[in-house]
Amino acid sequence: MSIKQMGGQTVRLQSPPTAAAWAAVVGKLEGEGPLGQNFDFISEDSYFGEASWEKAESAMMKQCFSLACDKGQIAPSQLDYLFAGDLLNQCTGSAFALRDSDVPFFGLYGACSTMTESLSLAAMVVDGGFADAVCAATCSHFCSSERQFRFPLEYGGQRPPTAQWTVTGAGAVILTAGGSGPFITHITTGKIKDLGITDANNMGAAMAPGAYDTLKAHFADTGRGPGYYDAIFTGDLGVVGHQIVIDQFRKDGIELEGRYFDCGMLMFDREKQDVHTGGSGCGCAAATLCGYVLPRLQSGVWNRVLFAATGALMSPTSSQQGQSIPGICHAVAIETAIPAV
Amino acid sequence: MSIKQMGGQTVRLQSPPTAAAWAAVVGKLEGEGPLGQNFDFISEDSYFGEASWEKAESAMMKQCFSLACDKGQIAPSQLDYLFAGDLLNQCTGSAFALRDSDVPFFGLYGACSTMTESLSLAAMVVDGGFADAVCAATCSHFCSSERQFRFPLEYGGQRPPTAQWTVTGAGAVILTAGGSGPFITHITTGKIKDLGITDANNMGAAMAPGAYDTLKAHFADTGRGPGYYDAIFTGDLGVVGHQIVIDQFRKDGIELEGRYFDCGMLMFDREKQDVHTGGSGCGCAAATLCGYVLPRLQSGVWNRVLFAATGALMSPTSSQQGQSIPGICHAVAIETAIPAV
Repeated sequence: MSIKQMGGQTVRLQSPPTAAAWAAVVGKLEGEGPLGQNFDFISEDSYFGEASWEKAESAMMKQCFSLACDKGQIAPSQLDYLFAGDLLNQCTGSAFALRDSDVPFFGLYGACSTMTESLSLAAMVVDGGFADAVCAATCSHFCSSERQFRFPLEYGGQRPPTAQWTVTGAGAVILTAGGSGPFITHITTGKIKDLGITDANNMGAAMAPGAYDTLKAHFADTGRGPGYYDAIFTGDLGVVGHQIVIDQFRKDGIELEGRYFDCGMLMFDREKQDVHTGGSGCGCAAATLCGYVLPRLQSGVWNRVLFAATGALMSPTSSQQGQSIPGICHAVAIETAIPAV
Repeated sequence: MSIKQMGGQTVRLQSPPTAAAWAAVVGKLEGEGPLGQNFDFISEDSYFGEASWEKAESAMMKQCFSLACDKGQIAPSQLDYLFAGDLLNQCTGSAFALRDSDVPFFGLYGACSTMTESLSLAAMVVDGGFADAVCAATCSHFCSSERQFRFPLEYGGQRPPTAQWTVTGAGAVILTAGGSGPFITHITTGKIKDLGITDANNMGAAMAPGAYDTLKAHFADTGRGPGYYDAIFTGDLGVVGHQIVIDQFRKDGIELEGRYFDCGMLMFDREKQDVHTGGSGCGCAAATLCGYVLPRLQSGVWNRVLFAATGALMSPTSSQQGQSIPGICHAVAIETAIPAV
């Protein structure tokens, strides 16, 4: 076992990469939410100037990638790798967005966990000495997701109270070797967890076991308790899944409340915005990370954050065939100082 | 720039991981082809004992993963990570296959390039000191792919001569730190290349620019010519794409013929099997690698192989919206001895 392996599912980066720049681009509804003032760009037009929602999603992602490069004063040609994925069939949202980037490209599919899956691999590749600068990115769009996963919007389908609202948003983080932080210090990679939930309108319940499992593994592997962190985020469990995670840890005698938040709950004002149990989609965790969490690490509001995006690895076909919904969660520790070993 | 970076798109592994075990599982048609005697298991039943083709694909992948572990005498619990993906929407083929494995899971989407995308990341994670043993795997199934990408099989759609035949097959490779080889020595990660091909029945032409670009980058970055290798494989360009790559290199004054093969052409006997321009699908390169290439490296028939799987990053939706087809190709050098620096 190498000195990077902490046992279990966690690795400690020896030369933690710096989150050198990031950007978040969202749609109008997200811009009207509680985090609205944090985003780099809010589009008033859900089509982002394009002729289809799928093309809109790619345009949003492309803009977000471009903004991250601009903010970091890093040209795409200086990037060694891109790690990106999204929810659309065959991940065309990200592939079409980045096809002209001329950067070596690793396509990922982690459903709504893609932001931390991409960050995990990006950080390992930098720490492993394979790259000096890389970008991790993901996106989702409410309209393209509804069409693909549920019903055409024109149908006006009713949504049960446990349903979530796919965020129209994109996030991109540029990691560089060295730098002055915030640093990606630890990575806990999730296992697929499937406890038999078959209701595709209750993704929070389907993903909560994965989130609980990964957070528990992270605490066990690192010897850190929740109290080590200023804030812990999952995304995107919504109200239902967030409460399940709290309840599960209470059974273990561990209290998360007060420092544990869910990106799906932060993105919208559920009193004023009709999003049921909260936001979801790759873009939810991505835009929350890039618009809200990383800036607060940079400004010193927080010094230690555990960020754990969650995904549901089902498809409409698997649900139609009666399959249950496998969930997964990948966690990354982001800290303003490199902890002593 | 670290000592692992060779400039351009290629990295040289400092402690090349060993391909310690592998397995290939295929369908009946593939078993009747020229490579038939090489595979670990050939299913006479296209349903693999399941009730749907999607479930069949997962069953095949699960069997392949299990066989690779058995052959390597490595329990899944000894694996640090799994890297897997497939062609199905939301990559359910691999996620459902591996959901009970209890191994930290990175889901990938590289279309038919997934075998080398997964091998690339798996090898970097081992060489980077994050893992001692990992598995890279992928699969595709003719029937689930036809239903999803083209027409229901019952429709009996006609296929043009440039069309390819999705291979029913799975491949899994276990990489370990150290070992006695075959070693993954170099990784050249592809950029997305889109030259404007819009015909979804001519994937070979759409993917050939990506293959040419990645092979060219590999030769430039490493200083190796094609003659360094005993054999060079792309997958899955078929007859049309294979010829385009040969022609492109001829324009550069480089002759590939004689040592350059395409997995899509090797998998089937195009005289006797009605597969048009050749095989395709994630499983084509994967089963060719695990059933044909790795055994020949192990037995010493070859000592140096460049293996470059190719993927088309489109979806039915992107094609319906008139988008062209982005291609990508990731190359890995596999050698029986670690070359001197």
